[in-house]
Amino acid sequence: MGIKLVHYKQDHATKWGVLVDDVIRVISQDFETLKELLNNREIIAETANDESVETVNLSAVELLSPVTRPAQIVCQGVNYGDHRLETGYEAQKPDYNTIFIKFDRAITGPYSDVVKPEFVQLLDYEVELGLVIGKEITEKTEITADNISDYIAGLVIVNDISARDIQKTHGQWLKGKSYETFMPTGPYLYLLDVEEVPKILDVDIKLWVNDKLRQDSNTEALLFKPAETLTELSELVSFNVGDVLSTGTPGGVALNVNRQLALELADPAIPYSEKLENFVQSQLTEGHHFLQDGDIIKSEIKSADGTIDLGTQINKVVYK
Amino acid sequence: MGIKLVHYKQDHATKWGVLVDDVIRVISQDFETLKELLNNREIIAETANDESVETVNLSAVELLSPVTRPAQIVCQGVNYGDHRLETGYEAQKPDYNTIFIKFDRAITGPYSDVVKPEFVQLLDYEVELGLVIGKEITEKTEITADNISDYIAGLVIVNDISARDIQKTHGQWLKGKSYETFMPTGPYLYLLDVEEVPKILDVDIKLWVNDKLRQDSNTEALLFKPAETLTELSELVSFNVGDVLSTGTPGGVALNVNRQLALELADPAIPYSEKLENFVQSQLTEGHHFLQDGDIIKSEIKSADGTIDLGTQINKVVYK
Repeated sequence: MGIKLVHYKQDHATKWGVLVDDVIRVISQDFETLKELLNNREIIAETANDESVETVNLSAVELLSPVTRPAQIVCQGVNYGDHRLETGYEAQKPDYNTIFIKFDRAITGPYSDVVKPEFVQLLDYEVELGLVIGKEITEKTEITADNISDYIAGLVIVNDISARDIQKTHGQWLKGKSYETFMPTGPYLYLLDVEEVPKILDVDIKLWVNDKLRQDSNTEALLFKPAETLTELSELVSFNVGDVLSTGTPGGVALNVNRQLALELADPAIPYSEKLENFVQSQLTEGHHFLQDGDIIKSEIKSADGTIDLGTQINKVVYK
Repeated sequence: MGIKLVHYKQDHATKWGVLVDDVIRVISQDFETLKELLNNREIIAETANDESVETVNLSAVELLSPVTRPAQIVCQGVNYGDHRLETGYEAQKPDYNTIFIKFDRAITGPYSDVVKPEFVQLLDYEVELGLVIGKEITEKTEITADNISDYIAGLVIVNDISARDIQKTHGQWLKGKSYETFMPTGPYLYLLDVEEVPKILDVDIKLWVNDKLRQDSNTEALLFKPAETLTELSELVSFNVGDVLSTGTPGGVALNVNRQLALELADPAIPYSEKLENFVQSQLTEGHHFLQDGDIIKSEIKSADGTIDLGTQINKVVYK
């Protein structure tokens, strides 16, 4: 069994701890960032194994994102076949790995509100398995099943909230994905035991909106796997400890794009206001699934045998 | 007059200094990052004004990028009318600011080689005015002519080297713009005097390849100006001291895209290998300007009256 690392606030103090059932074993030392804590990782295991440390009930605290700023949030796009289909692509593994980022400004807590900025018209959800980097990568590195446990410290639920009207009409995705509260993260960082690492490729990933199941898949369906992706990125990104690779979302999001729409979005001859209006209209069909004021989003990622369990993330949607 | 801050290597030691003519006044304290140095900015002015400090000749050192890792490199795309035209858009200011990033892995020195990875087919140049952030921005902030001098510490030449075959066929731009050595930066960081800040909008920006002038503009042609852009980004990016906003490149790059080509690039029905081959063929016309092995790129940014001068950046292209 791995360790459930929590980052929390109590009485205006921010602390780290290890979750055992519903009790937090408090890490006595303070660490400003996840990076600093992971660079002193022995203290986490010591706290997990020490029954005499100070404890606090989970219900008495506010959980924060275990991923802290500054962090690079590197994301894979269209990395599940069913999500590729609903966004206008062929389902099969493509010739290239689509990579984008979210600015870390988007990070918010696992139970925090997701706030739609006033000007955003199409708010969407994307549950994803987030891999937290445990060892810096600064040069071309072959990452394989044998050494990937060196580079991935743990797993976390990430919701890659997206303003589809901004994302799809601006061409480059990062703006529509980086507004404040657009990245609920947690409830905890699941620090993997070495022997659990292969299970990264077999965890169930689900998202509900108002208790209706909208996304339901398993990471075995990932097209570009973590080892292959980190190997490619090792030529492009200097990863720091505590950075995140978010592996993409499965099918079931509200967005729906076909070839015709993809071509319209890319057409420089269509005036922007017309393009935006047409796109928004194309998405707001009867029974669409875009997030509404007051909606409750729930996300879970766990292995079928229950040994890996990233907890339940719950967020309310608030229209500003 | 502002201060010319240099970061350099001499006898395996990395130091900071202030350039006065061809002599470096050495900053006695060591700072690992530009952020740390800018957070202790008084030492820079003290060194600049102290004729008794240790000095070293510019010719005796190797200049490094004054921008250090980790840094967020936030970039504006298609932000000059003439560059918009050559890349398939209308010339006038569009409805939205195109934003992307380069990973900081790309940063290299002002006189370092630009290395084309073996698999890259279309290597292009983009001289840009880089603004170095001097004060962190972590919340929505109205940035105007009156307060922009608080947020911009200085100016630097950035070459946003781009692998067009990767950038344009992968949709998201950051991969094709982030390989190692794809961001020559420097030779120095020009720390602005407060009264010089308005001149940011009136500096000449030029790039030559093998002494042929390829890009020749002035920042008065910037469509989204720095104050407007930083105000927008203040809702999206948590800027740290030492981060960079690169303001986009003027016309004259090797890339040439028209509407038909833009639509083909976006068409999900065209197989990737076909799309890539067609795109590369469309660019390698007779007399094209893509960078060749051994080419010498030279960039300069300065005001017509000579008061602001970001120096001369020179890089040799090396095919791996």
